[in-house]
Amino acid sequence: MTTNNLDIINELESSVRSYVRSFPTVFTKAQGYKMWDEAGKEYLDFFSGAGALNYGHNEPSMKKKLVEYILDDGITHSLDMASTAKIDFLNKFNDVILKPRNMEYKVMFPGPTGTNTVESALKIARKVTGRTDIVSFTNGFHGMTIGSLSVTGNSMKRRGAGIPLNNTVTMPYDNFVNDESMDTLDYFERFLEDNGSGVAIPAAVILETVQGEGGINAARMEWLQRVEKICREWGILVIIDDVQAGVGRTGTFFSFEPAGIKPDIVCLSKSIGGYGLPLALTLIKPELDQWKPGEHNGTFRGNNMAFVTATEALTYWEDPTFEKSIQDKADTVTAFLDDMIEKYPAMEGRRKGRGLMQGIHSDVEGFSEKVAEHAFKRQLIMETAGGHDEVFKLFPPINIDEDGLQSGLAVLEESIKDAMESMNLDKETAKQ
Amino acid sequence: MTTNNLDIINELESSVRSYVRSFPTVFTKAQGYKMWDEAGKEYLDFFSGAGALNYGHNEPSMKKKLVEYILDDGITHSLDMASTAKIDFLNKFNDVILKPRNMEYKVMFPGPTGTNTVESALKIARKVTGRTDIVSFTNGFHGMTIGSLSVTGNSMKRRGAGIPLNNTVTMPYDNFVNDESMDTLDYFERFLEDNGSGVAIPAAVILETVQGEGGINAARMEWLQRVEKICREWGILVIIDDVQAGVGRTGTFFSFEPAGIKPDIVCLSKSIGGYGLPLALTLIKPELDQWKPGEHNGTFRGNNMAFVTATEALTYWEDPTFEKSIQDKADTVTAFLDDMIEKYPAMEGRRKGRGLMQGIHSDVEGFSEKVAEHAFKRQLIMETAGGHDEVFKLFPPINIDEDGLQSGLAVLEESIKDAMESMNLDKETAKQ
Amino acid sequence: MTTNNLDIINELESSVRSYVRSFPTVFTKAQGYKMWDEAGKEYLDFFSGAGALNYGHNEPSMKKKLVEYILDDGITHSLDMASTAKIDFLNKFNDVILKPRNMEYKVMFPGPTGTNTVESALKIARKVTGRTDIVSFTNGFHGMTIGSLSVTGNSMKRRGAGIPLNNTVTMPYDNFVNDESMDTLDYFERFLEDNGSGVAIPAAVILETVQGEGGINAARMEWLQRVEKICREWGILVIIDDVQAGVGRTGTFFSFEPAGIKPDIVCLSKSIGGYGLPLALTLIKPELDQWKPGEHNGTFRGNNMAFVTATEALTYWEDPTFEKSIQDKADTVTAFLDDMIEKYPAMEGRRKGRGLMQGIHSDVEGFSEKVAEHAFKRQLIMETAGGHDEVFKLFPPINIDEDGLQSGLAVLEESIKDAMESMNLDKETAKQ
Amino acid sequence: MTTNNLDIINELESSVRSYVRSFPTVFTKAQGYKMWDEAGKEYLDFFSGAGALNYGHNEPSMKKKLVEYILDDGITHSLDMASTAKIDFLNKFNDVILKPRNMEYKVMFPGPTGTNTVESALKIARKVTGRTDIVSFTNGFHGMTIGSLSVTGNSMKRRGAGIPLNNTVTMPYDNFVNDESMDTLDYFERFLEDNGSGVAIPAAVILETVQGEGGINAARMEWLQRVEKICREWGILVIIDDVQAGVGRTGTFFSFEPAGIKPDIVCLSKSIGGYGLPLALTLIKPELDQWKPGEHNGTFRGNNMAFVTATEALTYWEDPTFEKSIQDKADTVTAFLDDMIEKYPAMEGRRKGRGLMQGIHSDVEGFSEKVAEHAFKRQLIMETAGGHDEVFKLFPPINIDEDGLQSGLAVLEESIKDAMESMNLDKETAKQ
Repeated sequence: MTTNNLDIINELESSVRSYVRSFPTVFTKAQGYKMWDEAGKEYLDFFSGAGALNYGHNEPSMKKKLVEYILDDGITHSLDMASTAKIDFLNKFNDVILKPRNMEYKVMFPGPTGTNTVESALKIARKVTGRTDIVSFTNGFHGMTIGSLSVTGNSMKRRGAGIPLNNTVTMPYDNFVNDESMDTLDYFERFLEDNGSGVAIPAAVILETVQGEGGINAARMEWLQRVEKICREWGILVIIDDVQAGVGRTGTFFSFEPAGIKPDIVCLSKSIGGYGLPLALTLIKPELDQWKPGEHNGTFRGNNMAFVTATEALTYWEDPTFEKSIQDKADTVTAFLDDMIEKYPAMEGRRKGRGLMQGIHSDVEGFSEKVAEHAFKRQLIMETAGGHDEVFKLFPPINIDEDGLQSGLAVLEESIKDAMESMNLDKETAKQ
Repeated sequence: MTTNNLDIINELESSVRSYVRSFPTVFTKAQGYKMWDEAGKEYLDFFSGAGALNYGHNEPSMKKKLVEYILDDGITHSLDMASTAKIDFLNKFNDVILKPRNMEYKVMFPGPTGTNTVESALKIARKVTGRTDIVSFTNGFHGMTIGSLSVTGNSMKRRGAGIPLNNTVTMPYDNFVNDESMDTLDYFERFLEDNGSGVAIPAAVILETVQGEGGINAARMEWLQRVEKICREWGILVIIDDVQAGVGRTGTFFSFEPAGIKPDIVCLSKSIGGYGLPLALTLIKPELDQWKPGEHNGTFRGNNMAFVTATEALTYWEDPTFEKSIQDKADTVTAFLDDMIEKYPAMEGRRKGRGLMQGIHSDVEGFSEKVAEHAFKRQLIMETAGGHDEVFKLFPPINIDEDGLQSGLAVLEESIKDAMESMNLDKETAKQ
Repeated sequence: MTTNNLDIINELESSVRSYVRSFPTVFTKAQGYKMWDEAGKEYLDFFSGAGALNYGHNEPSMKKKLVEYILDDGITHSLDMASTAKIDFLNKFNDVILKPRNMEYKVMFPGPTGTNTVESALKIARKVTGRTDIVSFTNGFHGMTIGSLSVTGNSMKRRGAGIPLNNTVTMPYDNFVNDESMDTLDYFERFLEDNGSGVAIPAAVILETVQGEGGINAARMEWLQRVEKICREWGILVIIDDVQAGVGRTGTFFSFEPAGIKPDIVCLSKSIGGYGLPLALTLIKPELDQWKPGEHNGTFRGNNMAFVTATEALTYWEDPTFEKSIQDKADTVTAFLDDMIEKYPAMEGRRKGRGLMQGIHSDVEGFSEKVAEHAFKRQLIMETAGGHDEVFKLFPPINIDEDGLQSGLAVLEESIKDAMESMNLDKETAKQ
Repeated sequence: MTTNNLDIINELESSVRSYVRSFPTVFTKAQGYKMWDEAGKEYLDFFSGAGALNYGHNEPSMKKKLVEYILDDGITHSLDMASTAKIDFLNKFNDVILKPRNMEYKVMFPGPTGTNTVESALKIARKVTGRTDIVSFTNGFHGMTIGSLSVTGNSMKRRGAGIPLNNTVTMPYDNFVNDESMDTLDYFERFLEDNGSGVAIPAAVILETVQGEGGINAARMEWLQRVEKICREWGILVIIDDVQAGVGRTGTFFSFEPAGIKPDIVCLSKSIGGYGLPLALTLIKPELDQWKPGEHNGTFRGNNMAFVTATEALTYWEDPTFEKSIQDKADTVTAFLDDMIEKYPAMEGRRKGRGLMQGIHSDVEGFSEKVAEHAFKRQLIMETAGGHDEVFKLFPPINIDEDGLQSGLAVLEESIKDAMESMNLDKETAKQ
């Protein structure tokens, strides 16, 4: 029967579909870090909707609020009209997130997806500075609409545009040139300071502090601080795309907090809605909020159900121990991955990322894909990252319990062993 | 208290907010064609979320299915993995909409908003044809991300891009030159056939059959047919952006049905989710569905709550009398507007649009805005359209009952009278 | 021997070569309207270097001055340093051309070719207005470098760019739509006045008053006047590209004089050097001359030999009867072409152009090319124009004597007859 | 009287004029390395028309041939028709330059200026590869038309475009980052090999082996060889812009000969005409010469007077001692500059460049400009280079005699002393 239903997808849905190819089953239910398919099989979810389900599936307290709201005929769709749900969210976001962090930003609802917030960020940066170019970084991923795609590194996705992508310059992300002695920002700085470099002073830089799709590349805090410093010197705006790394994924609400930087614009989406519902925010420093009314708009800016769950999700952040609990789990993952790398040298692994956004880069071609494949067979959902899928990554919910985490890690180790066996990696190692 | 809550919006939300300025109150609940604000005031909604609430607010049968689904821990967020909710939607959409209309399309979920579907349509059209240019039409509106904005006419919104918008050519929409004798397609055709015209053969044309934001301009059926004919001759793809005019707004499910044309690509969003939840589809002729897996992606392609309500919404279309009922209401609106124009010549009105997407273009500067303003005071929510807000438009839910429709029209007449009075239009007329 | 030398061209020169294919012989000498090839054959030149030899070949008085200058070790190459030859030219150009016409312009030497002057014109127009778009017209031809190519209509040449050509909008030239009742400027004006048209107010329009390469299309004087009027209303600069139609080709020094318009920028090249030597000028209204020193430069801006011959060439324009003499010859050509059209109806001809820039558009496919081909066999050098080479055109030197003109016309009539015979046109006509 | 004539320039010529501001006098005559102004003052020319007068002014043997040709009514202007003068040039260029160097190229005449050849090179590279991007290098200078400007580094000139310059990527030239340990090509290579870098495989790279305008930056031979190697690996075409460094300026006919690389396309202009007359060539490997006839054209491709002098100029290269003589003079210059740097440490000089394209980079702000200024007062014409005019450079004719060279160097030393005095550099040094 599963087969039959998947056949419907294959028959009716566009060939662009992708995750269904990695996870070929039909899911019916989900709760916390677990999912179930039509056949009743239970899966552990270490993928978390690519970072959109940081609180796990169908979190009970949000679910309760959501159902109440719907039953009560609360406003569902409001464009950018005022609604109680929206005001409640704005208030709580300000009280729980911005104020305690001494952050002052205007909140823009740019449309409910990651690419909406990125596009709005680029627009306001260009408008405010009167400049056209945006600097992005190698292996950055910012979205699929033309503006966001222009600052995305992946060559297959860029070619998908069908037109040259312009008004952007790519600079090397931290450690891009694989040479310890080289600070890639020396390049960036030289390009700015030499008036014959062919690179104009840009409106803004846009970057992720940890690149998710690009290979779980975590920039060093010093590197982030130097980016900010350079930008301040040249009057360049700093846009942090925290769509994937934000909302607790790296251990703090915003991923850039440990670096102590103050972005001019912050892009949030994915887990900001809490429950997996479409929502995105663009945070803009008040002095840069120079939009004319309606200069950017969109039909689903007022997705009130997402306001309701987003508001409830912020309750987690009222608990002073929440960040610590994420970081503890992150430490568990770090220790586990380091152990795996030592225990299985044949996979030639390097640990990457930080917080609950970590993975192993394997230099063995095809190995990481094999790990993810075997994990799925063992009912653990996880994915690869990087231009050649060279990293297998762990994205468990950030509120996962100890049991769930340990179960997943145990399955992962078995999957690594499966992958090694299927590629005869042990034998090769033995030979050496 | 209302004031206080609106103050929160003003303090915390970006200056880009817009509808809240036209409708300055805080809404709390809604049902069908009615909305209520914090103060308990009841409003008639002849705006329908700019076309995203064609079935009215919180439609009871959808609401029931939605709550059941949530309570049952159905999958909420699934990227493009397979879920029961998605398969159910695909099946029913195929059975109720495509098959009976003899339409064969692959369904792409490009991300949940109108601009996502437009961007995906432009990308696949460029990819399949290997050409870069897209022809759009004057006063078209297709979205706010750079790709969609490039095919949108509005100059204020285009300037908001902060960069030149390229790889597009604007052609005159039907009746653009205000000259009865002139078929604007003569121009288009000449540009194509003269190899010195500076206009390359484009990948595609993109158009709305009735331009909503652009001023409720309805193209004649012959004009649409000739567009299709020209495109066939030159191997140009036809993209119909049915985001606003589709899903019954003009009286048929797809707005282009009366013209009998067969678009290569159809963009749907807004009301396709049924309940006002973010959802968008790109329908692609099977032979053009040449996407590579993952070549276009997005986090919220699998908004399962929207699948649930979208599926339930299709039930309306199983009823053979549904289309007729919309058209009857449209006739009522038409008759009413014609009557207004005759009765109040001082407003120098012309009726525009078709179906339940009609309005009056007033040549008196500022008049249409005044009508909408007074309507709001009388608790009727309606909006203006056009580059100078010269049209006031009626977008009641398509399933509104006779009472609701008549109530709204009655308030509208009063609002017209208010507007005339406030602008001293009667007196001027009297003087003449 | 001719063959051998042409073989050298074929072997060593790029396949991009073109005129040598239409005129497959090796030329050795030239004088006035005559050329001779290696075999000693004499040709009549009704092509005039595509408008670069308006005074004929090796005009004796210029030749004398040029040889004296060289023998005297006058400065040959001076970049934009001051030289006596340059100052003499500036003075005489001002005295003989600008002042008597009440024209005040700053003279820019943008590099010695037509495309250099066009590129410089577009740059200063964008700089001064702060706008990016340029409006060009269908079938305009302005040059082969990327800026000029962007405003050129020809699709084959545009594709040669290998990149999308942006920041330009094409509008229909006079009579583009072949419909007497349609003024193409209605169309242009609508695009400007409707803020939803997708066409931004451009920095400038650029146009030729008679389109040479595009098919000898002469705009009506009223059309030119209305272009200027529209541009004044909208603050758009008017650039006249007089590279081909200027310097007497249409009967007056500037081609736009009969229309009484005052362009903001005028592009001159081709015959401005007098002797066929590379020279170009960009004339800029003083208030628009906002260049920074060196903001546009080029190695051959100071081609002093061309200054010497250009200065001498201006002597022609001191003679008050010179313009009249050109116009008399133009009348002769007009009468002749009208006669041909009447006499040979089978060629389905229409006369096009004005001044000594006239030709016949034949609706018979391939006919015009045949005429040029036969003319060459009869030792008359002439060319075709238009996107399908549908026009055969006459470009005799403007100082040709009566004998020369009549000889050429006589050969042309014979060539028309040859072409008709070779295509069996008479017989077909007879049959009808 | 000089003043009066300069006033005419100031009054009539555009403010874009530039060299006349550095050399404020009116030149009348020139011969070899000498120039004379209206007042009869004699100047030594160590500027050589920015590399367009490598054989000095009015070289006697070319002058003789040129006058004979003119007196004999040789063809002056021929578009791309065949002429004796052109065939003679092609033959001799092939025999004297290409064949002895084992080079096989098709010769394209792209229009007579440097920017014409660059534009044609970019077009054919894009056409042949089907790719859109071109990689250029920091501080490259390739011309002022939009295509060439897009690959030029200078920010002031780029802004002059008035539009974003697209379809190009800038990579760091040799030694750009001022860090010996860093090979800038590591950086380039990483961008190519990482499919997430945001940089697509380009159609071509374009570069000068010695950057003239950009600051007399000479790339190391190993660097050039590695550029070629990388390009071969990735199927990227190599375009060498030898407009300024070619035709003997660095000691060999082509500047890239010592590196042993084989460019796919070579751009030549400036001194290729020999006498300072406008001429440019694009050399294209035969298999890449895929132009359609007329796909790129231009009025002054057939500047026959330049063919005549260019042919005669090649005679120099028949003399086997010619290259050696340039290199000897280059050694003299090198020794002299090294001496100056040692003798005058206060100017904080570094020697740059190679061949007769050398200069001193002074770290003292404004010093190099002062040197050039004082040199002019002492009747030595020389210029500065670099984004901040931080280099004073020597460009004597490559056929200058020993006396001339020594005289110029002597004046230069005096000018250095003047500059130091005027900036009180000696005193400061003394203080230390």
